[in-house]
Amino acid sequence: MEKGIFITIEGLDGAGKSTQIKFIKEFMENRGFQVLISREPGGTYIGEKIRDILLDREHHEMKDMTEALLYAASRAQHVEELIKPALEKGYVVLCDRFVDSSIAYQGGARKLGIEKVREINKFATGGLEPDLTIFFDIPPEISLERIPLEKVDRLEQEKIEFHRDVYNTYIALSKENPDRIKLVRADREISEISRDIKNVLVKLMKDMEK
Amino acid sequence: MEKGIFITIEGLDGAGKSTQIKFIKEFMENRGFQVLISREPGGTYIGEKIRDILLDREHHEMKDMTEALLYAASRAQHVEELIKPALEKGYVVLCDRFVDSSIAYQGGARKLGIEKVREINKFATGGLEPDLTIFFDIPPEISLERIPLEKVDRLEQEKIEFHRDVYNTYIALSKENPDRIKLVRADREISEISRDIKNVLVKLMKDMEK
Repeated sequence: MEKGIFITIEGLDGAGKSTQIKFIKEFMENRGFQVLISREPGGTYIGEKIRDILLDREHHEMKDMTEALLYAASRAQHVEELIKPALEKGYVVLCDRFVDSSIAYQGGARKLGIEKVREINKFATGGLEPDLTIFFDIPPEISLERIPLEKVDRLEQEKIEFHRDVYNTYIALSKENPDRIKLVRADREISEISRDIKNVLVKLMKDMEK
Repeated sequence: MEKGIFITIEGLDGAGKSTQIKFIKEFMENRGFQVLISREPGGTYIGEKIRDILLDREHHEMKDMTEALLYAASRAQHVEELIKPALEKGYVVLCDRFVDSSIAYQGGARKLGIEKVREINKFATGGLEPDLTIFFDIPPEISLERIPLEKVDRLEQEKIEFHRDVYNTYIALSKENPDRIKLVRADREISEISRDIKNVLVKLMKDMEK
């Protein structure tokens, strides 16, 4: 059924994902692909409403399991309404955050458990997995400094230990899925990061031709 | 840990649950209990925001799995923030709809599957089950007629076959859990329904003394 390419972008906020997403879009368009950019939580009308609940700085009382299930609900809508139809039409779907984010943030840092969050997300995605995941590898101490204070959301407000747990879970996930998750060192010049990403994309397209 | 009594009320909308919830509250208060009334989806500040997304009549594009996960998210918040703390303080918690609703509506009528919805809700509740569930047994043809048109929400808009599937799933659940789920015929006079409910409550308290 699936004819397109599903690429997800992962990493801590402040890792410089947005700039490179634009680079990936242009790179793939220049190779003749139609590219759809989306993000999680959100990506759909209903998903953006769920996003508002999730990121509201006033929602201090939100429980960890509520958080995990809301992310999954937003994702279920995103997959069925947007991602799957676009892939069936042959699009490159470029998504800022996907299941790995939930595993890193709710499973790892919130300590809900990797397996539990994985299970919930199997329901949400119906088993859909990215063809490629690019992980922006940057230590939390550096990435957090890049976020302007007035833009900090509910999850970013967490202490440095929280973000360190997120980071460590991402690293563990990338070791577990070396074929799918590619690390790109993100504490460097924009052009250097783009060059690494380009190499990853070229390799992906070669592999897909096989 | 749990010292209180957890009672859930189930059935189709228009079955007359609200009137009888007031009766149960008074009945239990007269026996010296403190009673907390709540409802799903909702029951908490965050849960009510989720409720707004779920019942909005404009959200025609909502996918079945999104719906199931949003109900579960609202429930997770409800259980942790409100129900468990109240039970620990010895309250009677009286909840209008709980897991059985999700199994009947999303599992049965939306055809997501009973087991799938049960699994998702195990995450949401952490395994908490009602001590007693009163099912208001009334055929959908009769209950639906009782809802004023301007009050019809997104789920109530569904066709009669949908509500028939909900009803049949409830019946199957009650056969599966005869000790927990008690049927009360709800197509009768208010006083007759109350009398049956009173008998169920008296039996519950006798059983709990053992």
